[in-house]
Amino acid sequence: MNHSICTNDLFLRACKREDVERTPVWFMRQAGRYLPEYRAIRAKTDFLTLCKTPDLAAEVTVQPVDLIGVDAAIIFSDILVVAEAMGMQLIVEEGKGGPRFPAPLRSRAEIDKLRVQGAASALAYVYDALRFARKRLNNKVPLIGFAGAPWTIASYMIEGKNPRDFRHIKELMYSNPSDLHALLGKLSVVIADYLGAQVEAGAQALQIFDTWGGVLGQEEFEEFSLRYIRQIVGAARKGNAPVIVFCKNCGHSIAKIAETGADVVGLDWMTDIGKARELVGSFVALQGNLDPTILFSTPARIEVGVRSVLKKFGKGNGHIFNLGHGILPETPVENVRAFVAAVKNQSAAFHE
Amino acid sequence: MNHSICTNDLFLRACKREDVERTPVWFMRQAGRYLPEYRAIRAKTDFLTLCKTPDLAAEVTVQPVDLIGVDAAIIFSDILVVAEAMGMQLIVEEGKGGPRFPAPLRSRAEIDKLRVQGAASALAYVYDALRFARKRLNNKVPLIGFAGAPWTIASYMIEGKNPRDFRHIKELMYSNPSDLHALLGKLSVVIADYLGAQVEAGAQALQIFDTWGGVLGQEEFEEFSLRYIRQIVGAARKGNAPVIVFCKNCGHSIAKIAETGADVVGLDWMTDIGKARELVGSFVALQGNLDPTILFSTPARIEVGVRSVLKKFGKGNGHIFNLGHGILPETPVENVRAFVAAVKNQSAAFHE
Repeated sequence: MNHSICTNDLFLRACKREDVERTPVWFMRQAGRYLPEYRAIRAKTDFLTLCKTPDLAAEVTVQPVDLIGVDAAIIFSDILVVAEAMGMQLIVEEGKGGPRFPAPLRSRAEIDKLRVQGAASALAYVYDALRFARKRLNNKVPLIGFAGAPWTIASYMIEGKNPRDFRHIKELMYSNPSDLHALLGKLSVVIADYLGAQVEAGAQALQIFDTWGGVLGQEEFEEFSLRYIRQIVGAARKGNAPVIVFCKNCGHSIAKIAETGADVVGLDWMTDIGKARELVGSFVALQGNLDPTILFSTPARIEVGVRSVLKKFGKGNGHIFNLGHGILPETPVENVRAFVAAVKNQSAAFHE
Repeated sequence: MNHSICTNDLFLRACKREDVERTPVWFMRQAGRYLPEYRAIRAKTDFLTLCKTPDLAAEVTVQPVDLIGVDAAIIFSDILVVAEAMGMQLIVEEGKGGPRFPAPLRSRAEIDKLRVQGAASALAYVYDALRFARKRLNNKVPLIGFAGAPWTIASYMIEGKNPRDFRHIKELMYSNPSDLHALLGKLSVVIADYLGAQVEAGAQALQIFDTWGGVLGQEEFEEFSLRYIRQIVGAARKGNAPVIVFCKNCGHSIAKIAETGADVVGLDWMTDIGKARELVGSFVALQGNLDPTILFSTPARIEVGVRSVLKKFGKGNGHIFNLGHGILPETPVENVRAFVAAVKNQSAAFHE
């Protein structure tokens, strides 16, 4: 396996539920605003420019490895660049409610116009960033590539901005499901190509983020989100990079998520990792699941929280420590260090 | 029982899992902006003034009974008036992100300053509105009173506005849980008094809304939300008004919610009502749980959705039809009528 090339391959071994000396740890949005060194770069470069400047994207990708000591890097990018590559105008303005599409999709004609052919190759700057990051990492720890799930990306493409009530995408889902399936189908093809190209460029694992799967009823989650994730996982697993599927607020469907073919299921902090292990731990690894807001408390309290997650998972292999969602920008960096140290110090006892 | 005084007592019978000829239906925020007749009143009266003008509040409370044909009325009010009654300044401005507290709670001293004694009696305008609404209803259908759950109200009091990441309340929860318990304890006393006074003023059933319980891990949900709901339900059930507990995004804890002593458990649309009935249907009624956004589709699609919920619940008693969350303001009123008609027409077959 290609993970043997990393000096620290704890993360890749844990993905495959192989023996590890301690639980590996990384966290979502670890290359981000909580780090002064990241903010220094962002002070000179806006968000999308940073995504599209491979050398800088690689630099911030590696920061948490050097500065915080995480066991894996994840490429700095945004899930919405896929929509831009398919032909939509994407705007990211600081402090104005996040990314937005000024011309959201509102008709079948607009869906049909989106390009599939050539979309993944329009994301060459991501592949370059991966190559540069691999070089900078020098096989110290593995590098994770990622993409958003079709349902989540489609939510932004149709709502136009950070979705709150999902009124437009759900109107389409209930009134005209075949149009929505057309969009989700196109996204799935592009995302599968995109993840394949990320592996070719050096990604050693892949994560699929379904941030918004949890706003769907269970049947709709299966029909409009999970079936497309399954297709993408199927395509992605043709390489030998392990695949992580993270669906937020989808604790009701852990078993189904585990059956997509994913190697690892990511858990939010509302899911009990002990119960999840009982349910699916014999055939997938689990990633998670500390509440990110605990990082606003104290090192002592964080240690208690880390220990509680470790105890719930219990002894043995197949656990990758992470937060249950992305770290918040205002998180004190000393508490982030305390979190990573707590995982490293306390987890060895669970692998004796 | 006092429900025999209503001409249409389907709702109260269903709360007690007694025989009904068809499934009763009402829906959260049914006195609201989707109704042109409500908007006509709001054009002349701002939101908080409407809450505090008993005659007008009673008028909009009764509108959906007369105009839409629902089987229960719910008093027009806001969950945050309780915080105002305890001494906080509350501002509600149209189109500016909802209600907010310009001086959110950030210290123990501020929590200690909140008044408990006299808070419930400061809400006399709500009791007047209930009395006026009962008069206008003339025992046509029952009238529901309500309150927010302590955790949910505290979230607004501490975050200051519509909470998104719950950074401040969770910082308090993790760093200084006894301060948060002090606040939740005070809120629980006031809310129990408030609900008791609502029953005295004429409320024939009560609903507790925990809109934000679902942002907590399962243990924290138990410690910081459910234990206080349990106290309030215990106090509220001393009257003979049935109590409904609705916790959004808490499908993981349906059994625990049912064990609070509630007569009815409200379900969001992410929870499978059939599985919930299997789990707790032998000792509580269930309320819900159509996705409110389906009301943006067509009458035919809405009918399919209604039928699907009815089939999942199955034949027999103990079901109150509702949406899985509040109706959205832009919902077309003709679709709301189609929704209520579909429940009325299709549910009789499930009670033969």
